Amino acid sequence: MKAHSLCIPSTGAPLEHTVIERRGLREEDLLIDIQYSGICHSDIHQGKGDWGGGIFPMVPGHEIVGTVAAVGTGVTKFSVGDRVGVGCFVNSCGECKYCLAGEEQFCQKGVVFTYNAMDYDGAPTYGGYSQSIVVTERFVVRIPDRLSPDAAAPLLCAGITTYSPLKHWHAGPGKKVAIVGMGGLGHLAVQFARAMGAEVTVLSQSASKQEEALQLGARSFYSTRNEETFSKLAGAFDLMINTVSANIDINAYLSLLSVDGTLVNVGLPVNPDSYHAFPLIMSRRSISGSFVGGIRETQEMLDFCAEHGIAPMIEVIGANAEEVQQAWTRVEQADVRYRFVIDTSTFPQE
Amino acid sequence: MKAHSLCIPSTGAPLEHTVIERRGLREEDLLIDIQYSGICHSDIHQGKGDWGGGIFPMVPGHEIVGTVAAVGTGVTKFSVGDRVGVGCFVNSCGECKYCLAGEEQFCQKGVVFTYNAMDYDGAPTYGGYSQSIVVTERFVVRIPDRLSPDAAAPLLCAGITTYSPLKHWHAGPGKKVAIVGMGGLGHLAVQFARAMGAEVTVLSQSASKQEEALQLGARSFYSTRNEETFSKLAGAFDLMINTVSANIDINAYLSLLSVDGTLVNVGLPVNPDSYHAFPLIMSRRSISGSFVGGIRETQEMLDFCAEHGIAPMIEVIGANAEEVQQAWTRVEQADVRYRFVIDTSTFPQE
Repeated sequence: MKAHSLCIPSTGAPLEHTVIERRGLREEDLLIDIQYSGICHSDIHQGKGDWGGGIFPMVPGHEIVGTVAAVGTGVTKFSVGDRVGVGCFVNSCGECKYCLAGEEQFCQKGVVFTYNAMDYDGAPTYGGYSQSIVVTERFVVRIPDRLSPDAAAPLLCAGITTYSPLKHWHAGPGKKVAIVGMGGLGHLAVQFARAMGAEVTVLSQSASKQEEALQLGARSFYSTRNEETFSKLAGAFDLMINTVSANIDINAYLSLLSVDGTLVNVGLPVNPDSYHAFPLIMSRRSISGSFVGGIRETQEMLDFCAEHGIAPMIEVIGANAEEVQQAWTRVEQADVRYRFVIDTSTFPQE
Repeated sequence: MKAHSLCIPSTGAPLEHTVIERRGLREEDLLIDIQYSGICHSDIHQGKGDWGGGIFPMVPGHEIVGTVAAVGTGVTKFSVGDRVGVGCFVNSCGECKYCLAGEEQFCQKGVVFTYNAMDYDGAPTYGGYSQSIVVTERFVVRIPDRLSPDAAAPLLCAGITTYSPLKHWHAGPGKKVAIVGMGGLGHLAVQFARAMGAEVTVLSQSASKQEEALQLGARSFYSTRNEETFSKLAGAFDLMINTVSANIDINAYLSLLSVDGTLVNVGLPVNPDSYHAFPLIMSRRSISGSFVGGIRETQEMLDFCAEHGIAPMIEVIGANAEEVQQAWTRVEQADVRYRFVIDTSTFPQE
């Protein structure tokens, strides 16, 4: 079946309208009518080939919310009309220790990404900048009734990307957590960490975001453009989630960690970072990374958002190449508070 | 009281003989007649001012074994004649949360190093390349009878530096541990990790050390000069202890870690290292550091050595400037298997 979509025809080319073919339903497949699709900075990186390779034409989008329009004969967990979501991947081996543990992102056969990937059958995957998608039910999550569908979309990547490390490194009561960068990821991380019971500080270049940071639950806010920030906060944090995907002065940020503190990178700079062993060794600190989260944890995160009233701040745009291209430009300029979401109902409806 | 010693008179100058004054016994002090003092690569770095600063004249040495020659009136744990050791530090505040937890290395007031430091009273500290030392009993450990005193000396730094991270990151049955570098630290790390029950692999430049690595308990040995090593061992290790104090290709070593694996640096390169966030993020790996260990853990490590028959391989030299200077040169050339120990009984005995 055909689906109006937006694609990048070749590396670095502008977005354009296209019509793709979605596969027929297999036993365990759901056909999802997409309602909203979030824009992630990684869409832009992949469209430009920043991380190497790239399968073109590319239909980006891995923050997908919609309703079930049809189900395969073997589907057991979903029915037509259910509100559902799809995140960063659509297949995994299902048999390795990581899949069995619900951490499909580490699948030993290799998790299949929602777009810019080849599925195990050799077919390219196309993402959520589209009217519809066909996904095996194991990679579909339920959108709780209390979440509005447009704001739910960014949770499928930006949400789980920040929720997972906060859980893994035990953000909670008594823990001092710093969120580095107050963007699409950061403004969700603040809400999660606060709801988990941690004391949250935002470290951001833009002093202009202070008020919103405090409203979202931060106890305090410091501008990283102010050098005093780094002397004042030396040793202050147990955990730091670095959402910035540009290179930062790692040694300066390490100095803000307490003994046994961890700096977790969730943004992926194109160039390497540099660190000195001294601040790691002298306080047994760590530099770590975290990569989205598994399907089970994604469902847990959505339920947590519903329970705690957590949602991203979004700007909804139409599903045409011009508007989305403009949004991409603004994402690159960090000119969005805090996440764009494409209303895919504005695709031609034929 | 006077003590024959070896000192570096000024930054980078050769070692020379000197006589220093040790402080009179305070209530909780022990006077220790030093028998053996190990040579640590950090002695050389500090003598050269590689890490900045330096208090001269400098009497190096923080791997000290001797016997108690006199005790202050308030000493409760030791008696004259006891075999004792002193490691990397000789004072700490004793009141902060880290001191109370037995992790004096992280003392919030600042731990006082055995040499090249100022004690809280403003007096410079002088290390173990000396006939005697006066140390408050809280920083003295007991050398078990089953350890020979010369081989016990390197345990006080090289031993605890490798034992502590192996314990902290849970080396044990079912864990695959790689030891990077087979030198003074590495050849002890192999023995500890094996005795803790882990499966141990040595990664070393020198294929010539393979036989000894296997004798000391490694299950396997790979030369890091062979590029196939890195493809063959991709994702193989839960924990990697990097004992090399030169810069290494961090990304290549990270690729050898499994999901949730940790690369722990215990060597301190002069220059920064570089890493790409990608291998951290995609497998939730960590780069960490570890800094010696507390007094309680140092005693535990010595007892562990006695129980499991663990000891360094050493080369004993005389306590004169020429021999020690030659030993330093050989340490810098990695030409020692695996640790030099100065026999301080060869100082002039007047």
